[in-house]
Amino acid sequence: MGRPSMTDIAPATRTRVMSALRGQRIETPSWAYGNSGTRFKVFRQEGVPRDPYEKIADAATVHRFTGVAPTVALHIPWDRVDDYAALAAYATEQGVALGTVNANVFQDDDYRLGSVTNPDREVRRKAIGHLLECVDVMDATGSRDLKLWFSDGTNYPGQDNIRQRQDRLAAALRESYGRLAGDQRLLLEYKLFEPAFYTTDVPDWGTAYAHCLELGERAQVVIDTGHHAPGTNVEFIVAFLLRAGRLGGFDFNSRFYADDDLMAGAANPFELFRIMHEIVQADALRPEYGIAFMLDQCHNIEPKVEAVIRSVLNVQEATAKALLVDVEALAAAQRSGDVLEANAVLMDAYHTDVRPLLRDLRADMGLDPDPVGAYRRSGYLERVSAERVGGEQAGWGA
Amino acid sequence: MGRPSMTDIAPATRTRVMSALRGQRIETPSWAYGNSGTRFKVFRQEGVPRDPYEKIADAATVHRFTGVAPTVALHIPWDRVDDYAALAAYATEQGVALGTVNANVFQDDDYRLGSVTNPDREVRRKAIGHLLECVDVMDATGSRDLKLWFSDGTNYPGQDNIRQRQDRLAAALRESYGRLAGDQRLLLEYKLFEPAFYTTDVPDWGTAYAHCLELGERAQVVIDTGHHAPGTNVEFIVAFLLRAGRLGGFDFNSRFYADDDLMAGAANPFELFRIMHEIVQADALRPEYGIAFMLDQCHNIEPKVEAVIRSVLNVQEATAKALLVDVEALAAAQRSGDVLEANAVLMDAYHTDVRPLLRDLRADMGLDPDPVGAYRRSGYLERVSAERVGGEQAGWGA
Amino acid sequence: MGRPSMTDIAPATRTRVMSALRGQRIETPSWAYGNSGTRFKVFRQEGVPRDPYEKIADAATVHRFTGVAPTVALHIPWDRVDDYAALAAYATEQGVALGTVNANVFQDDDYRLGSVTNPDREVRRKAIGHLLECVDVMDATGSRDLKLWFSDGTNYPGQDNIRQRQDRLAAALRESYGRLAGDQRLLLEYKLFEPAFYTTDVPDWGTAYAHCLELGERAQVVIDTGHHAPGTNVEFIVAFLLRAGRLGGFDFNSRFYADDDLMAGAANPFELFRIMHEIVQADALRPEYGIAFMLDQCHNIEPKVEAVIRSVLNVQEATAKALLVDVEALAAAQRSGDVLEANAVLMDAYHTDVRPLLRDLRADMGLDPDPVGAYRRSGYLERVSAERVGGEQAGWGA
Amino acid sequence: MGRPSMTDIAPATRTRVMSALRGQRIETPSWAYGNSGTRFKVFRQEGVPRDPYEKIADAATVHRFTGVAPTVALHIPWDRVDDYAALAAYATEQGVALGTVNANVFQDDDYRLGSVTNPDREVRRKAIGHLLECVDVMDATGSRDLKLWFSDGTNYPGQDNIRQRQDRLAAALRESYGRLAGDQRLLLEYKLFEPAFYTTDVPDWGTAYAHCLELGERAQVVIDTGHHAPGTNVEFIVAFLLRAGRLGGFDFNSRFYADDDLMAGAANPFELFRIMHEIVQADALRPEYGIAFMLDQCHNIEPKVEAVIRSVLNVQEATAKALLVDVEALAAAQRSGDVLEANAVLMDAYHTDVRPLLRDLRADMGLDPDPVGAYRRSGYLERVSAERVGGEQAGWGA
Repeated sequence: MGRPSMTDIAPATRTRVMSALRGQRIETPSWAYGNSGTRFKVFRQEGVPRDPYEKIADAATVHRFTGVAPTVALHIPWDRVDDYAALAAYATEQGVALGTVNANVFQDDDYRLGSVTNPDREVRRKAIGHLLECVDVMDATGSRDLKLWFSDGTNYPGQDNIRQRQDRLAAALRESYGRLAGDQRLLLEYKLFEPAFYTTDVPDWGTAYAHCLELGERAQVVIDTGHHAPGTNVEFIVAFLLRAGRLGGFDFNSRFYADDDLMAGAANPFELFRIMHEIVQADALRPEYGIAFMLDQCHNIEPKVEAVIRSVLNVQEATAKALLVDVEALAAAQRSGDVLEANAVLMDAYHTDVRPLLRDLRADMGLDPDPVGAYRRSGYLERVSAERVGGEQAGWGA
Repeated sequence: MGRPSMTDIAPATRTRVMSALRGQRIETPSWAYGNSGTRFKVFRQEGVPRDPYEKIADAATVHRFTGVAPTVALHIPWDRVDDYAALAAYATEQGVALGTVNANVFQDDDYRLGSVTNPDREVRRKAIGHLLECVDVMDATGSRDLKLWFSDGTNYPGQDNIRQRQDRLAAALRESYGRLAGDQRLLLEYKLFEPAFYTTDVPDWGTAYAHCLELGERAQVVIDTGHHAPGTNVEFIVAFLLRAGRLGGFDFNSRFYADDDLMAGAANPFELFRIMHEIVQADALRPEYGIAFMLDQCHNIEPKVEAVIRSVLNVQEATAKALLVDVEALAAAQRSGDVLEANAVLMDAYHTDVRPLLRDLRADMGLDPDPVGAYRRSGYLERVSAERVGGEQAGWGA
Repeated sequence: MGRPSMTDIAPATRTRVMSALRGQRIETPSWAYGNSGTRFKVFRQEGVPRDPYEKIADAATVHRFTGVAPTVALHIPWDRVDDYAALAAYATEQGVALGTVNANVFQDDDYRLGSVTNPDREVRRKAIGHLLECVDVMDATGSRDLKLWFSDGTNYPGQDNIRQRQDRLAAALRESYGRLAGDQRLLLEYKLFEPAFYTTDVPDWGTAYAHCLELGERAQVVIDTGHHAPGTNVEFIVAFLLRAGRLGGFDFNSRFYADDDLMAGAANPFELFRIMHEIVQADALRPEYGIAFMLDQCHNIEPKVEAVIRSVLNVQEATAKALLVDVEALAAAQRSGDVLEANAVLMDAYHTDVRPLLRDLRADMGLDPDPVGAYRRSGYLERVSAERVGGEQAGWGA
Repeated sequence: MGRPSMTDIAPATRTRVMSALRGQRIETPSWAYGNSGTRFKVFRQEGVPRDPYEKIADAATVHRFTGVAPTVALHIPWDRVDDYAALAAYATEQGVALGTVNANVFQDDDYRLGSVTNPDREVRRKAIGHLLECVDVMDATGSRDLKLWFSDGTNYPGQDNIRQRQDRLAAALRESYGRLAGDQRLLLEYKLFEPAFYTTDVPDWGTAYAHCLELGERAQVVIDTGHHAPGTNVEFIVAFLLRAGRLGGFDFNSRFYADDDLMAGAANPFELFRIMHEIVQADALRPEYGIAFMLDQCHNIEPKVEAVIRSVLNVQEATAKALLVDVEALAAAQRSGDVLEANAVLMDAYHTDVRPLLRDLRADMGLDPDPVGAYRRSGYLERVSAERVGGEQAGWGA
């Protein structure tokens, strides 16, 4: 095409883009550092953390090399500790902070037929109790966001009453929301299927949105990029929720099929760019806007810390490209109905190689321009592999 | 299984089921009687109507043989006439009534880049004008429902601003809704894709629901069973919208792939049953509940009137099975967490052969127990094939 | 419709159908009786077998109540025993026989990057060694079929060379096939994805078919009904492979989304019927035709033995309906291009309630007409729950 | 990442890449220049060709600005002329040549229930006659390839016998193949669905491949990138068919949903890159390898000539990136099982901005470095819009 490539970026644009990128914040999840797998097999790797402290050390390593991942999300009970203040202090010491608290109501035998939507009132009480406990943890850690994903659903038609399960869900959400204080928020995640195979109780953004509307303003929808039916246009949902003021956060990851949980940007980098384009258009990248940009991934066969670093970089690259979109040229082409030119303006930004710019950004930030190379050269993996011997490696059941 | 089959239906159950079925109402669409096809080819058939009057005659034929299809939906401008009172009188004379009015803002060259969401204000005004005209038609025909499906969307990333298109859509809906009077309703339909290939402006139920919430109580969502992404659980949406009081109607049809528009119940009769099960559970089958049960189909290669008859019968069969579900046994199994028994209760109803019961119902209603056979024997197709010669056959562009 | 329902089945038809059903054979998998789950959680159930002997006892129970499940498939190494003759003798004693041997090359840490397609030659040798060992087991058990499913594939673009992996696969298949003797067969299964998330090395029937063609006549394709992309027409594949003489067997199960492994016939009973219709049309139901009709399922939340019984019954019901298709009327309608009548002939069989006929069949076979009820009344689950205490429950990793 | 970007391309690499790109050949389809649309609406545009000559003029314009599109595919009967020699001479005069001949057996009323698989022998004869006529055209035009896509299939279960339709298909293919002479080839295309909605007779690559195997070596499979089920890994099919020596050509286009026929590379540029990576790895880009790289697209709402130019450029960009893959580093990472590094090597090439290199290439070839800009400035569209007034615009029915 005839449009400018990277080398032609105007100084003012460059300054604007660099500034925005410098302020970007991506939260990494504690569980990405532990072992994971499919139902067929969990492959063990060397150097995997054995407790929340070691997970935080890994997360801090990611931040040390990328500069844009200063918080780490917790998963309760996987990251349950006696003293959250001590955990938070350790995180601070490592250069990061504790972030979103993720509730887990899917790994007790009691939850076989659901947690907050279970037909059994006792099980529902237990599940709600866990949600409330998670707010206690937030109080202790100073976390802003309670992220709720429910594996609840059914496997067979008729197994349970779809509508009554919504009633139960609404009641549990109300109680949890009522427990929040200050600027605490409830982030509700949706997922098409898995582990439930016939219905899930929050299968799509519409369901999450409807419940959030009923709860109140601090209830917001979380988009996990891998939780949609084939063909779903995710950036449409992003745009819609931004317009409605109900986009609370992202769980980034990527997939070719179902909820594959591959590294963000690995399967469809163009989609990630289109998502970030909606964010940039709404000026919603700024932390003060309130969107939690999180990763939610599994590294089943690849080394975990490096995979998280690469994922952070992928989000950063997509963001940089989105920031390069010539919004005035785009708007002009859209207004005039010039389909091809409007598409071309977008694609020009996408086709730009932003890696030189990102190297410069890192140099400015006092980082190695090549985070992956620097990480590999650092010997971190070798060191923790030697240190983390004995004990039980962290994983989804830990 | 060990449960009772048809021959064992208790007399009280039988009476209840027969009574509910007798009150069922299924609306057939005028356009199902005209020619249709794919982008590759529209095959012409003999006896196809040439004007709205002849379409109504076909719809009346369907009602004459099935007894449960007493209304016919209009599509404006395809069914535009000078004198709607005369058209309504003709319908009455034929034994049917005019039903839902469907707006069409997708077949003018002006709508290449959208109708109510077009970037061009003039085109939007024109489109809104058409919507308002449709309410005029409703006033003339006494129709209750304005059904809106928008082909609006974009084919390429960047082509237009997703969020601004939502603003334009909201404005058009507000103006249309404001024009309604009395018990008139606005039914908003959603569709994943086609003819738009990148985004559609109302792609899913969540979008339709959100707009309806903003409009007011007489704005309701229409579920077209063929307008979903692969894997979408349609009965969940049915249950959710029933709970929210926002299910306005159905466009029944079936599909294996995209929006194939095959005869309702032809591709997945079990899904149709599950949908009707949600309806029956909510006691929403009764006409006074307010749900418009419509067909929206194309008969590209098969004879049209017979295909509509078969579709009506398919919906009726699915309804009969749904009415046979032993709701107390189902609820008991659900409460006790007996997954297999709960599923079995549902499946028992599905596996029941309801054709004998439906033959009895028809005999009671003074109909031939075998509508398809009776229709074939009636010579209707031969007669209209002989009569409807010359002129232009109705079709999607007519 | 006007066609005959069950009560009108002609005596000759009835005799033919009963005879065919009496000869039907459905193999159940040993692993269906053990614990299973998703990556999120394996729920434990009472009474789950702790070794291959107890699995066989469960399989024999299924056969005792259904009469059509006389063999049980083994999974090596999950069902590895020192003395296969003793295992076979125990099976005989229980009234069943050992069936297909399933190889497992996906649960060693060595297989992280693949088994027979691993870039590392040593790992490939190990994997091939296991395949050959499985033939040893077949020699010991007298099994006819070696069923191969490979989890091999890649998670990321570029991870490995797609084409070279085919070369490695072909070599491993050649070596395994060469080891077969007598009437032993190699059945090659395909799967779209999971656990591999970018490519699988045998993703579709075309790949399996192409490899089988190169191997020789005793290499045949296995269709797992849950291993296809959304929208795939499975009965087309059945028909195609039957025509090509390369359909070796089925792994029946059902799914709404991915490889959900629900009970056969639970998610889409109409699809199962269409599959069996192709089988019946080709007269391929007879055991001597050579197709292995197997279940391959997981019962994550429902009781396992009962779930297998219900699955067997579902396959049986679908078969009974397929046997009821009026093939002459169908062929006549097809020849004359009567789309609706041809479809109706098929649907008439599908809509028939075959449960009364199956009850009669079972009575004739000396079985309880209601297998599920009889199983529940038998107290089997309560008994094994009491007996099977202590030890380790069998599961996918066992 | 730390790897070199565009500015660092080694001179030897640059020379190799430029040389390969200079030899690339992309065929454009005559029908892309005519009107097209969806079943809902065909929007008319100014300047659309009215006959095959004007289509060729448009194709020649694309070649004039891109330098890599020297042939144009014909569609019979849409491009039927009395004198193909005259048409070929006109093409030569315009600087292009006639390419692949595409048969059309889907637009006669006779083909309502199929062409070569129709149950009616007379219709089959007519369809085969058309295929043979297409070879006559090839003899006249000197075309090498006969491309066959069949819309044949069924809309309803039971409508026709799946297996017998395969027999009919095989017979028609045999007769067509037998008519070929010299180096003429038969390219068989597959498609999942549309216009058939239940089965298609060549739904997937496996079916096309199996038929090609039976026909002989000059029967080859064509991959239309938009003709797959959701989730299908297209580059796997490319790799498999290359390995089997049966990849005859591509129909490039892109899609988000079904067979959307958007500009190649518009929906998923990363997928197009991965496809070209398989081509480059097999050294199959060279024209002498024999793969026909064709576009098959519709430009429903965007200007057609410019859309084709952009599509050609998109394929060229994807190819340039594929040529930049460091194959030695890739192979080394794959061999060592370094999942992340192997993926990174591939992604590094993908992330490179190849537009500067392509501008240089065009300058070397005597072309404007900016084909779209040059085309817009040329006034071509304005000129043909003024000239092509009156007569009937070409379209799918023309």
